[in-house]
Amino acid sequence: MASMSFLQKERAHYIPHVPPLLEILPSLVASPDETLVVHDSDIIKELFPNTSKYPFLSFQRGSKPTATPMKVGVVLSGGQASGGHNAISGLFDGLKKIHPGSTLIGFLEGPGGIIKNKSIVITEKLLESYRNQGGFDIIGSGRTKIETPEQFLAAEETVVSLGLNGLVIIGGDDSNSNAAFLAEYFKKQGVPVDVIGVPKTIDGDLRSEHIEISFGFDTACKVYSEIIGNTLKDSLSQKKYYFFVKLMGRSASHITLECALMTHPNLALIGEEIAAKNQTLKDVVQQIVDLVVKRAEQGKNYGAILIPEGIIEFIPDVNRMLKEINEIVAKGPSSLETAIGQAPVAVSRFNAEMLSKPSQETFNIFPEDIQKQLLFDRDPHGNVQVSKIESERFLMDLVVKELDTQEIKGRYKGKFSGQPLFCGYEGRSAMPSNFDANYCYSLGCTAAVLLNNHVSGYIACVKNLSKPVHEWTIMGIPIHTMLYQEKRGGKEVTVIKKALVDLNSKYFKEFASQRELWAMDDDYLCPGPIQFYGPTTDTPPLTIC
Amino acid sequence: MASMSFLQKERAHYIPHVPPLLEILPSLVASPDETLVVHDSDIIKELFPNTSKYPFLSFQRGSKPTATPMKVGVVLSGGQASGGHNAISGLFDGLKKIHPGSTLIGFLEGPGGIIKNKSIVITEKLLESYRNQGGFDIIGSGRTKIETPEQFLAAEETVVSLGLNGLVIIGGDDSNSNAAFLAEYFKKQGVPVDVIGVPKTIDGDLRSEHIEISFGFDTACKVYSEIIGNTLKDSLSQKKYYFFVKLMGRSASHITLECALMTHPNLALIGEEIAAKNQTLKDVVQQIVDLVVKRAEQGKNYGAILIPEGIIEFIPDVNRMLKEINEIVAKGPSSLETAIGQAPVAVSRFNAEMLSKPSQETFNIFPEDIQKQLLFDRDPHGNVQVSKIESERFLMDLVVKELDTQEIKGRYKGKFSGQPLFCGYEGRSAMPSNFDANYCYSLGCTAAVLLNNHVSGYIACVKNLSKPVHEWTIMGIPIHTMLYQEKRGGKEVTVIKKALVDLNSKYFKEFASQRELWAMDDDYLCPGPIQFYGPTTDTPPLTIC
Repeated sequence: MASMSFLQKERAHYIPHVPPLLEILPSLVASPDETLVVHDSDIIKELFPNTSKYPFLSFQRGSKPTATPMKVGVVLSGGQASGGHNAISGLFDGLKKIHPGSTLIGFLEGPGGIIKNKSIVITEKLLESYRNQGGFDIIGSGRTKIETPEQFLAAEETVVSLGLNGLVIIGGDDSNSNAAFLAEYFKKQGVPVDVIGVPKTIDGDLRSEHIEISFGFDTACKVYSEIIGNTLKDSLSQKKYYFFVKLMGRSASHITLECALMTHPNLALIGEEIAAKNQTLKDVVQQIVDLVVKRAEQGKNYGAILIPEGIIEFIPDVNRMLKEINEIVAKGPSSLETAIGQAPVAVSRFNAEMLSKPSQETFNIFPEDIQKQLLFDRDPHGNVQVSKIESERFLMDLVVKELDTQEIKGRYKGKFSGQPLFCGYEGRSAMPSNFDANYCYSLGCTAAVLLNNHVSGYIACVKNLSKPVHEWTIMGIPIHTMLYQEKRGGKEVTVIKKALVDLNSKYFKEFASQRELWAMDDDYLCPGPIQFYGPTTDTPPLTIC
Repeated sequence: MASMSFLQKERAHYIPHVPPLLEILPSLVASPDETLVVHDSDIIKELFPNTSKYPFLSFQRGSKPTATPMKVGVVLSGGQASGGHNAISGLFDGLKKIHPGSTLIGFLEGPGGIIKNKSIVITEKLLESYRNQGGFDIIGSGRTKIETPEQFLAAEETVVSLGLNGLVIIGGDDSNSNAAFLAEYFKKQGVPVDVIGVPKTIDGDLRSEHIEISFGFDTACKVYSEIIGNTLKDSLSQKKYYFFVKLMGRSASHITLECALMTHPNLALIGEEIAAKNQTLKDVVQQIVDLVVKRAEQGKNYGAILIPEGIIEFIPDVNRMLKEINEIVAKGPSSLETAIGQAPVAVSRFNAEMLSKPSQETFNIFPEDIQKQLLFDRDPHGNVQVSKIESERFLMDLVVKELDTQEIKGRYKGKFSGQPLFCGYEGRSAMPSNFDANYCYSLGCTAAVLLNNHVSGYIACVKNLSKPVHEWTIMGIPIHTMLYQEKRGGKEVTVIKKALVDLNSKYFKEFASQRELWAMDDDYLCPGPIQFYGPTTDTPPLTIC
């Protein structure tokens, strides 16, 4: 067994709190929730002939016949999120409570482990040192998807050969969409394996009317807010740096918004707002410059700006330019490579020739090294690797450039010194907050309950999360009710739509109403490190409050 | 008053623990510690005719005559360190206990505030929201030094005009050296102001036989270790990244060493060891490459490497090259600028012409952007801005380059993906750990006791820190006993010598004995976030244990 710190050992003994219903989980009986009607589109009915009529489920104490041992597989899919080990331990304990003879199998290194039939048996002994710990290292994770007919077949062979009754997929929007397809596929094939999803992602963009938040979001935001709060304090103490803080979360700006409300930075860019206002890259830079100039007038040459990782895809003119670049590459990568070569001169020749006029202008705003990245760094699908672009750094560069102009014009007399900061990997694998520890454990237990009720194609749901745990409730959500048609890379796909920041929500409006104050006054908050003991332990994320 | 988070409010009410002697601080009488003899060099005697005979002091309960109100100034000097507000509140409470009519004046934005006579009165009301909080924002800090005769005179005018009896300088090695000179100067001038220093710096390089650690080190290392531990967990879970983690601490590698012992990374570079072994930049890169190659053979394409901020100055060939560049610049900056221009071609022409052969070779190892930084980024003294060089990034670049060579040779078959990470500002202004909260508060109280005993030129010292607080003791250290002659920028100066990592210490040997295991096995530790409640709150830093 790996070494453990003092706190890791202490946390291993924490007993997660669960909602009252889960205290009696072996006796829970699922029944259709009649308050929630399933409306299916024709396309969903067609794609899910077997599972599209499944209703929302609620649970009551019933008198279930004595259960038989279950054999269940579990897999972690995609990026880490705090609480993964708790979801597994909740599932493990739930299955054992339902029948002590039940077995939990962990597929290794993500969905690829299902395809390749690589797994281990999860025992109490193994689980012991992972309870309430961060990371996904008990079985690892991976980004392989089960999509092709061959992969579906391979998955079928694996679950049949292992004699599984159930499969729990812990993952984000795509993995849960996938769980729906797998559930349907198994039904169609007559494979007696029920598939249940668990909503994971620090990005907070897997949510719905019922799923209040995905797990890991709370811990990640608290870890980042600790760092941001400390940095704000530092900024205020030394009064000489502007921190440009990039925060994980590419498709939505939930993390940035949550951290802004937790720390009160001078500016927080929200991608969804930039897109809605149709702001250009120049506008965004100007917004930062205006702040810096205005603060300098008050003698304040310091501060902090939060930037969501996905910012450049939210800026309409940049997004248009990215699409153009991707399309050009898609048309003929070889001709492109010949055309642009590696030299900066060739790069600029490429612009002039190949991009539309407005996109050329946008392209020319970028510093040379980013231009190179835009052209040469591509993912396996040939797309620009947006996540590799260090937007905190290039925004800083653009701000410096513009401030120089303002200085020449006599509009700016301050002194600018920037510091880039990326809040990233350290927030994904932290020890789960009590909120995530309790929530994930409850989700795992709920998955066990769903399996014990022999339902498939459901996502485990724990609700009322803004209340104390004893007021939490559980339900089962038919995944197909969350699916939409979406265009991705030119193809029509059926997926769970990513939930973006709702600019009409109370939560966003709260932020919008305060930010002018934060811009000029230094109303910085230090949330401090996550506490597992004492009065501040059990606070849920602000976004659900 | 600025907003405060829930935890900030809770922490504001924390009552720091103090050693038993400080419970009765108004009645403490200082007496020479006869076990500790002061040996003065001739040069110290000459520089400090009035204060060089001052003995080490210990304290006992005495029957001091009724005290009169004191008026004391306090200043924060240099970079932030967690606990600064506690040092001030300890001093404030100590002075008030000695006499309720005592006044504490805070000089604004560092020693510059003394020179310019800018100060505020520190009241209980003001202090309230700063107790046990991070940052130096109550009065700010600065890097101005009181060095010239004019500055000494200005300081004298300030303390006289305010009618101070005492001045407490909270700072690092240089600021405390300065405190000794100021104490001597006031004595010489017959100014009745006693000067006391308090040992601050997260770098942990201000220590001596008696000063076990400077304040802020504990909190910074714990904040960084939380981040590193999470990152290691992430690395182990995703198995695809090598994290190159740079840690603050330029002149010594204490922080890196402490964090290594707290987290067990695959490699931790210790500057002092690199210097002692006379390793070249190539050797250092090779060491990392060897690790990566060896781990890849075991199928491990992930891990983490800790790098002290000051690494490049510790590498002998790089340090030699830096000195050469600085000397060339010192000789004639204008001719240099004409010679090198701004273009990379000109830069390389500069190398060939101006550096020694070995330094040219070293220079050529650096990537082009770092070469530019080495030549063009200069501090106000014309020196290379070493702290701006992102060593975590260029080491990564050099490793990638060398791995490519190894791959061609067939020696490396792994897949390398690096992620740079800088643990910096967020560790300086964090809420102090209980250790730092108690330690700093006790240091502040000790400063009050020293002032109440009318001694000057002393540094406040709290000892026995590896023991529980009730076993801590206090003493007064004559600062001149810590002073040495050192060459800085060609000039002979009298300063407190920076305490480097002692390669013969038990502490380093402990690290050295374990690191081979850490290199290959993933014995990662997650210390987790600092806890203010519960069983893990009161752990002192490992380096003093």
